[in-house]
Amino acid sequence: MTSAVIFGAGNVATHLAPALLKAGIDILQVYSRTESSASVLAAKVGAAFCTDPNEIIESAHYYFYALKDSAIAELLNYTGKFKGIHIHTAGSVGVEIFDGKAQNYGIIYPLQTFSKERETDFSKVPLFIEGKNGNICALLKTIADKLSKKTYFANSEQRARLHLAAVFACNFSNLLYDIASEIVDEQQGGFEVLKPLIRETAEKVQTLSPRKAQTGPATRYDTEIIDKHIAMLSQQPELADLYEKMSKMIYQRSIS
Amino acid sequence: MTSAVIFGAGNVATHLAPALLKAGIDILQVYSRTESSASVLAAKVGAAFCTDPNEIIESAHYYFYALKDSAIAELLNYTGKFKGIHIHTAGSVGVEIFDGKAQNYGIIYPLQTFSKERETDFSKVPLFIEGKNGNICALLKTIADKLSKKTYFANSEQRARLHLAAVFACNFSNLLYDIASEIVDEQQGGFEVLKPLIRETAEKVQTLSPRKAQTGPATRYDTEIIDKHIAMLSQQPELADLYEKMSKMIYQRSIS
Repeated sequence: MTSAVIFGAGNVATHLAPALLKAGIDILQVYSRTESSASVLAAKVGAAFCTDPNEIIESAHYYFYALKDSAIAELLNYTGKFKGIHIHTAGSVGVEIFDGKAQNYGIIYPLQTFSKERETDFSKVPLFIEGKNGNICALLKTIADKLSKKTYFANSEQRARLHLAAVFACNFSNLLYDIASEIVDEQQGGFEVLKPLIRETAEKVQTLSPRKAQTGPATRYDTEIIDKHIAMLSQQPELADLYEKMSKMIYQRSIS
Repeated sequence: MTSAVIFGAGNVATHLAPALLKAGIDILQVYSRTESSASVLAAKVGAAFCTDPNEIIESAHYYFYALKDSAIAELLNYTGKFKGIHIHTAGSVGVEIFDGKAQNYGIIYPLQTFSKERETDFSKVPLFIEGKNGNICALLKTIADKLSKKTYFANSEQRARLHLAAVFACNFSNLLYDIASEIVDEQQGGFEVLKPLIRETAEKVQTLSPRKAQTGPATRYDTEIIDKHIAMLSQQPELADLYEKMSKMIYQRSIS
């Protein structure tokens, strides 16, 4: 049976490990410096766990690096010599991180936001594959196709662009949700009243382009409302500035 | 039978008019300066239409203003004398716009993004009610409760804050989707590959707080990735600046 060791027990590892198991790959071990995280994930996928890199099993077919970017190179000092295929899952780490450190390697990058507290349907997560050579690409494609219905090849430069786009679409949107949650009054329903709007905003662009889906005062550059809103943010100059800049960007795009 | 006239045939009117009809209100007429829009919406709800404010029916029970903010005051010069209840639907227009112009008036503000091209389940749209007096508030509450399961009272100041929050949560998020769509490479699947991420980002905050849901390089202020991303945006200084500011805001919030 194909076997794997998972490095990391954070948000990505917590979703990747069960998906691999479901794809028929035996998870031998979970390694994480944090014992509590390692043990929880290991139990979830019926694996052993360790917190000492010297105790990592050497005989696995695959090693998945679902760690902070900076931790990958560090761990490779211990694990690079293992004969299995080394696969990292990071958007902005190039394939060259493995050069001279491991023999067989590649990348499977899941373009999704994962939180431990939430289930994710991994079969809908777009996966981007890169490999040291054609053979590894083909092998990783076979695994990726078992994990998800949406798999693509992307080199390191293309993957970096995907990650950059994801930061705008996901992390920065989520920041805006956070800002909005601070603006709404608890007495008027609080963040709860914004949830249908947030959901619909995301649903609209599943069928309309974002440009076509845009609404609100900035699209028509309604200075009366825009000035009123900026004045309401006078105590938070950072937000007032953000409001003004984003409104101008929306308007410029609406007329271009 | 209770009757209404709708002013406007844009995104809001297109969703409000059928919802009113479904709630048992007879739509007598649709007024819009644009004949093509007026006739389409009128046909949809079995109403007459007009493009001349002098032809507006005087005997309706309700007049709904789903127009650009600046057009409401203008139209009130023709319609204010009508005895029915005048109701606008705007987030950032105060109740005082009716002062001295109409006798009975109020507001029903739907907190949602509407596009003509998309169906909306109006029963899930949060509605915020304000009225000239207690009687009108009660009357509007009865109508609103037929339109939606989520109805609240909010004065003009509270409604303005809701609108401001909505601009951040919806219009600005949608701008970020648009920016992201420009960054992704058509050869790597284009905007399509971002759709599951966008959907999941919005779904996560239905159950987690935005603060708790946040992921990505800015939460850990990973300068290596952040600097790389900013360098990738060097040809678009406006976006590089936006990236840097939003990353700092995310980090500040993550440690506060």
